[in-house]
Amino acid sequence: MFKVNDNYLKLQGSYLFSNIAKKVAAFSAANPDKDIIRLGIGDVTQPLAPAIIKSLHGAVDEMADAATFRGYAPDLGYEFLRTTIMENDYKALGCDIAADEIFVSDGAKCDSGNIQEIFAIDNKIAVCDPVYPVYVDTNVMAGRTGVFDASSETWSDVIYMPCTAENNFAPELPKETPDIIYLCFPNNPTGAAITKDELQVWVDYANKVGAVIIYDAAYEAYITEENIPHTIFECEGARTCAIELRSFSKNAGFTGTRLGFTVIPKELKAGDVSLHALWARRHGTKYNGAPYIIQRAGESVYSPEGKVQIKEQIAYYMKNAKTIMEGLSSAGYTVSGGVNSPYIWLKTPDKMTSWEFFDYLLETANVVGTPGSGFGPSGEGYFRLTAFGTYENTVAAIERIKNL
Amino acid sequence: MFKVNDNYLKLQGSYLFSNIAKKVAAFSAANPDKDIIRLGIGDVTQPLAPAIIKSLHGAVDEMADAATFRGYAPDLGYEFLRTTIMENDYKALGCDIAADEIFVSDGAKCDSGNIQEIFAIDNKIAVCDPVYPVYVDTNVMAGRTGVFDASSETWSDVIYMPCTAENNFAPELPKETPDIIYLCFPNNPTGAAITKDELQVWVDYANKVGAVIIYDAAYEAYITEENIPHTIFECEGARTCAIELRSFSKNAGFTGTRLGFTVIPKELKAGDVSLHALWARRHGTKYNGAPYIIQRAGESVYSPEGKVQIKEQIAYYMKNAKTIMEGLSSAGYTVSGGVNSPYIWLKTPDKMTSWEFFDYLLETANVVGTPGSGFGPSGEGYFRLTAFGTYENTVAAIERIKNL
Repeated sequence: MFKVNDNYLKLQGSYLFSNIAKKVAAFSAANPDKDIIRLGIGDVTQPLAPAIIKSLHGAVDEMADAATFRGYAPDLGYEFLRTTIMENDYKALGCDIAADEIFVSDGAKCDSGNIQEIFAIDNKIAVCDPVYPVYVDTNVMAGRTGVFDASSETWSDVIYMPCTAENNFAPELPKETPDIIYLCFPNNPTGAAITKDELQVWVDYANKVGAVIIYDAAYEAYITEENIPHTIFECEGARTCAIELRSFSKNAGFTGTRLGFTVIPKELKAGDVSLHALWARRHGTKYNGAPYIIQRAGESVYSPEGKVQIKEQIAYYMKNAKTIMEGLSSAGYTVSGGVNSPYIWLKTPDKMTSWEFFDYLLETANVVGTPGSGFGPSGEGYFRLTAFGTYENTVAAIERIKNL
Repeated sequence: MFKVNDNYLKLQGSYLFSNIAKKVAAFSAANPDKDIIRLGIGDVTQPLAPAIIKSLHGAVDEMADAATFRGYAPDLGYEFLRTTIMENDYKALGCDIAADEIFVSDGAKCDSGNIQEIFAIDNKIAVCDPVYPVYVDTNVMAGRTGVFDASSETWSDVIYMPCTAENNFAPELPKETPDIIYLCFPNNPTGAAITKDELQVWVDYANKVGAVIIYDAAYEAYITEENIPHTIFECEGARTCAIELRSFSKNAGFTGTRLGFTVIPKELKAGDVSLHALWARRHGTKYNGAPYIIQRAGESVYSPEGKVQIKEQIAYYMKNAKTIMEGLSSAGYTVSGGVNSPYIWLKTPDKMTSWEFFDYLLETANVVGTPGSGFGPSGEGYFRLTAFGTYENTVAAIERIKNL
């Protein structure tokens, strides 16, 4: 008789955003007249930029003609895209990353979930608290996290690194030595960023203790301040300890178009075994490449017109971020993030729990956000709003909250 | 110090098709004047049908306008596609499959590699021999296959079901009871098909012993004979024992466009635990949906024009299959497959090994095929040719082989 992977049965509840969607659907069904504004899930609202649309149409036309039709893509990504990424995202910043160290995929969520597969089950992970749920959940599914303690809402074999107002939402080096460290900066959900010097401390630490850093830089395009690194490979020594995850979702609006990439330097090894080779093998065996037309769209993001258009789109969202930050501040809320990030992290008023504030905001202002506690115990008492709505909706949502 | 998943280190050599690509590249570099015809990897050559191109352009235009732009897709697939699949691939055949039992993905290779994740590690798998390498390799990577024996080229904890000329390339029920049975019909690589009555024997067996069948029906569109099932859900009792994998790659030319789906009936359970729920959780946590524009393209495959155009494309490839079958037969080769399948399985002449014949064919006829031994020990002495080339190349390749 077949048996299931019972690690799945240890998972707590269902995925945060599914829960929110269910609550919103129930409220909406009960209150069909209410105009709900969604600043919860980090989904974009602006259409794809003209340069991307043009590139997509062009690639579709190529697929219509036997002479230019493309079948199976190279598992690891088309050379044209890998080279473009290398030039623009790495060489331009002085970072030594080769095109064949870049693995193109259908998005950073998939990569951040799958990357743990190439590591041993008894490796210990360290995560920020609060944290993007996918890092922890996929390790639970693999059997790497031990036993869940319902009272503390933590797993016995996970090292939690609290990110709170006290440490300015930047984790401190853990007391217990981890094998794998998940870091995400600019951070989801807190919107916090760390400087290059601060990140260098992590790279030095990882090299010293033999840990690997899985660095999620999905939000790097939102960095506005100097001294904030756009990639971990700006730090010295990162080539021997870091894997970087990148996404086209937030910088170019690809949430529904699906494209991302993972960078694994060839020097990153456990003994003789190169993680680059293991990930290549995983991609080759369990993945079949991103669609050709989508990879062409990705290339166009780096074209001269693409760059200008993308920059405008990011500025649009960052205007929303400013609107949220200033509006909530003036209404007496304690807010952070929002400067190098599309996420605003706010302290719930009147000692409400995160879910109490979620319900309160949904019911009274008809605004949807994300409860901080959904990202981990240290998120309790916080709430995430995103700058990815339309400007009109963002202004309206903030007005409603101010008027509560 | 972090450690790697050492199951990866047990993998034998690299992926079959990577090896072939390397051999062909080396030959091509050494013989730049030779015109190589590739009938090896199962990649299509005909452009996407006009109905699909039209649908892609339309969906791209939707992404250009904020009013019709689509962000994150539902993790499990858009309702419009799931319903279309249900109506056309299941209801039309009298099969009781609901739209929400259909999980849309970026292809059957990914699904066939990922599906093992929802099962316990100590489950025992049974595979046909020869077999599509992904089934076995992904179980190796998960640590489910025991120790590799180099002399027999088999894994200690895998049940092999030989498919040879003696049993007409149809596996017999295994002597040892498996937990998970991988079946692929029409078969890759042999091109063999089994009747509905024969498949019913497997469904009855699985229900009796409590095994689950992972049924890969990626090639169902190539079935030309009556009595050959297009889906395992034509068999009685399949809802309690079968998962079906389907692909748009071979019926609609999506190898570089990426779309597939997996069907898991809600009755399929281990005790109280529904595999449907586990796969939904996996998709929700580690996957982010197929691109909107690609899902619209998938929908168009089922439009009245799409159906006509796809049928013509399949007929084009099946004319190639006939050309290969008849040409090789007349040249004295022993061939099978090719009637309900785009794959032709031929016995190597003069007791050559599969790789010897590969080299011989590459060097003398400049034709690339796939060595049968790459699919498992019982594939030794066989060779796979595919009907996915252009008609002109197929005719030319067969002429060259006949003239050897």
